Amino acid sequence: MSNLIRPRTLSGFMELQPKEQVLFEEIRRTLERVYQSYGFFPLDTPVLEHSEILLAKAGGETEKQIYRFSKGDTDLTMRFDLTVPLAKYVALHQNELVFPFKRYQIGKVYRGERAQKGRFREFYQADIDIIGDGSLNIVNDAEIPSIIVDVMQSLGIDDFTIRINNRKVLNGLFGVFGIANDRAADVLRIIDKVDKIGVDNVKKELTACEPEGEALAMDPQTADRLLEVLTGRGTNEEILALLEQYRGQNETLDTGIDELKQVLYYLGGFGVSQDKYRVDLTIARGLDYYTGTVYETTVNRHPEIGSVCSGGRYDNLAGYYTSKHLPGVGISIGLTRLFYILNEQKYLNSAKSAPVDVLIIPMTDDYSEAVRVSAQMRRAGLSAQIYFEKKKFKQRIAYADKLGIPYCIFLGEDEIAQQKVALKDMATGQQETMTAEEAAAILLKRRAAAEAEKCVRM
Amino acid sequence: MSNLIRPRTLSGFMELQPKEQVLFEEIRRTLERVYQSYGFFPLDTPVLEHSEILLAKAGGETEKQIYRFSKGDTDLTMRFDLTVPLAKYVALHQNELVFPFKRYQIGKVYRGERAQKGRFREFYQADIDIIGDGSLNIVNDAEIPSIIVDVMQSLGIDDFTIRINNRKVLNGLFGVFGIANDRAADVLRIIDKVDKIGVDNVKKELTACEPEGEALAMDPQTADRLLEVLTGRGTNEEILALLEQYRGQNETLDTGIDELKQVLYYLGGFGVSQDKYRVDLTIARGLDYYTGTVYETTVNRHPEIGSVCSGGRYDNLAGYYTSKHLPGVGISIGLTRLFYILNEQKYLNSAKSAPVDVLIIPMTDDYSEAVRVSAQMRRAGLSAQIYFEKKKFKQRIAYADKLGIPYCIFLGEDEIAQQKVALKDMATGQQETMTAEEAAAILLKRRAAAEAEKCVRM
Repeated sequence: MSNLIRPRTLSGFMELQPKEQVLFEEIRRTLERVYQSYGFFPLDTPVLEHSEILLAKAGGETEKQIYRFSKGDTDLTMRFDLTVPLAKYVALHQNELVFPFKRYQIGKVYRGERAQKGRFREFYQADIDIIGDGSLNIVNDAEIPSIIVDVMQSLGIDDFTIRINNRKVLNGLFGVFGIANDRAADVLRIIDKVDKIGVDNVKKELTACEPEGEALAMDPQTADRLLEVLTGRGTNEEILALLEQYRGQNETLDTGIDELKQVLYYLGGFGVSQDKYRVDLTIARGLDYYTGTVYETTVNRHPEIGSVCSGGRYDNLAGYYTSKHLPGVGISIGLTRLFYILNEQKYLNSAKSAPVDVLIIPMTDDYSEAVRVSAQMRRAGLSAQIYFEKKKFKQRIAYADKLGIPYCIFLGEDEIAQQKVALKDMATGQQETMTAEEAAAILLKRRAAAEAEKCVRM
Repeated sequence: MSNLIRPRTLSGFMELQPKEQVLFEEIRRTLERVYQSYGFFPLDTPVLEHSEILLAKAGGETEKQIYRFSKGDTDLTMRFDLTVPLAKYVALHQNELVFPFKRYQIGKVYRGERAQKGRFREFYQADIDIIGDGSLNIVNDAEIPSIIVDVMQSLGIDDFTIRINNRKVLNGLFGVFGIANDRAADVLRIIDKVDKIGVDNVKKELTACEPEGEALAMDPQTADRLLEVLTGRGTNEEILALLEQYRGQNETLDTGIDELKQVLYYLGGFGVSQDKYRVDLTIARGLDYYTGTVYETTVNRHPEIGSVCSGGRYDNLAGYYTSKHLPGVGISIGLTRLFYILNEQKYLNSAKSAPVDVLIIPMTDDYSEAVRVSAQMRRAGLSAQIYFEKKKFKQRIAYADKLGIPYCIFLGEDEIAQQKVALKDMATGQQETMTAEEAAAILLKRRAAAEAEKCVRM
């Protein structure tokens, strides 16, 4: 057996330990539950699509990162996000779908980025989108943050901020400041960096005359005024008041201010507490995709993580595939990266990592009583495993201990004769003889307590 | 917009309608719940692996069907089953894992088979395996059928048969009949076809002298005796009695008979009812993988479907990657194909296809009361969606109807003034005014009834 192949997993591909996987599944399940509670349908599109479909819009960076190959005559690409497959799905099934179409999808996507710590080439995205047929009420844009709050709090993350902006406000301001349309994308890209490099450096980049390629060469006073509006801190009301000073100068800006105001008005109605969101005019999110409201969500204690939940409003989902006009609004959570960070930072709640409620250890050669008790536990809604192997007593106990199984049931001749079980609490070491029903009641109580716990302890 | 790309999904890749997807998720969730209740941990390995790893053992057909490609210097393959990735995982993490290691994995696998109706190139497998370190008690082999019964009945499929055999019995009989080791695989392959082509044709193939390649050329009397043992119908006891006549002639056979007897003995202990399983000595399942107990599960009314849940005992999971001896036993469900057939045959229970409990339709311009009621419904554990679009009343109702949402709540000025809601049962058309609490109670009752339903009505 010297010809063994060294077992290994591809670099940048997450593969969890069993207990970690249980926590990952808990988080996934929590997201599904919250999404479903708002009326989103599940969707599951293929991992592989025709390259022509996935790359209709892509360019530059995306093309370099994708996993693309041919099989027979077919040019295939592994999906790099869940939005393009959604666009294809909605265009393809537009006649059968009922609009507004609300869907969630939690699935793996693939990007062959340079491997580095905490960056993955295969990772889960957890998306929701609401797609309208021709139009979609702005109130949907206000419901999204309430879903984000629900998601975060259901996971156990309470100290976070949703930053909200509107792309029409940004574009309108560019109009006011005489920034040409074909420069807007560059300006946005630079402004997007304000949190990373600071206001001064952003100004430097905006006014620089000879960067590589084309220079923006904005005049310094314009840059100052632009940055004053965009990066001015204050309450949401103060920011809106500042914006109102520019009203009447640009139609797009006026529409943007109105939309932003409506979203903020309804946000209150949705019961989203004031400390959970703020207007931040520097948020841009991607260059040409979003057209209205945009969101980013940061964990206050960990700004270095960046946004854990982002998204926004777009004018037309599937323009590459259909002439039907399909506006929408949605958000995406980078689940693999979020999990990685929570795990690294020891924020995951290990109380939720036991998938087995009780290990049943038969002390006699005949297993029938163990089998009977295990079936009884399962009928009660519990997860029960019998330890079948002929190992020493110590090793059997160690098994439960290592897997984090909270209780053991021993079935010796005495217990079987008395129709009882010996229940051992692995945390306290206490052991007590009781009926199987009594044991089930204790286990159910513990389970309910574990289920009430959040996935994250932050 | 004449440059539209025609939206389409790859042939052989399942993509469901929203209501179908809800049912698929229900089935997946049911499998997860049953697997967890027996103490299996979830596992999620990457879709992509090093080709060297996945193809360590593969040959012939597998190599032709796989999706394999290079990115940079890396030779990659999309997994074609969940067993090889499991072998890699266990070999790689053998020092951290606790044995017996019980895991379930429900994930997509890829096989570029010729596309045909009901055959998929991307499909879900739902696997469980129990892996021992050095040894694994035979009782595990008896627990597996009780899990199959639990899975099938939890789905709502009650009329099925688990066929059980033992590869040692087969190999032992071959020894008795003087069939050489290097011929055993061919004989097994031919005998495996008995259900499809009948005993006579199997005999013809066994005794043929000049097939393509090498002929088996078994002498007709031996073929008769072999087929008599293997295909003889009777009770499990009668089949065992027939086998017992050959005891003492071959060690492997004797071990096989003992194992089979033990599995049958414990099956009773596990409460598996006699009409759910039977010994069938023609079951072989693959050529060189399984080494002991093997299972197939067929739906009695639909033998043409073939086995919906198969598996067995293997001696050594990961011999290509590690010298550690890892025996195991497991089963696999071809979930995509199973779903496809149940859907085609109209066996899916549409009562479970509504992911939204209630559609809240505001009849006033202000949505705050709708938002408040929807939050209240969600706090009660319900799924509630507000219809935000400014459409005609008829269209709003039609929305609930098309999505199969069972109830609507109307909130007009009267209801809001009285702090009540108007609840409409979409099935009966009845509408009643009541408090939101009363409405929630009715919705919860309906939901509990829907949850108690099985996924399949067969």
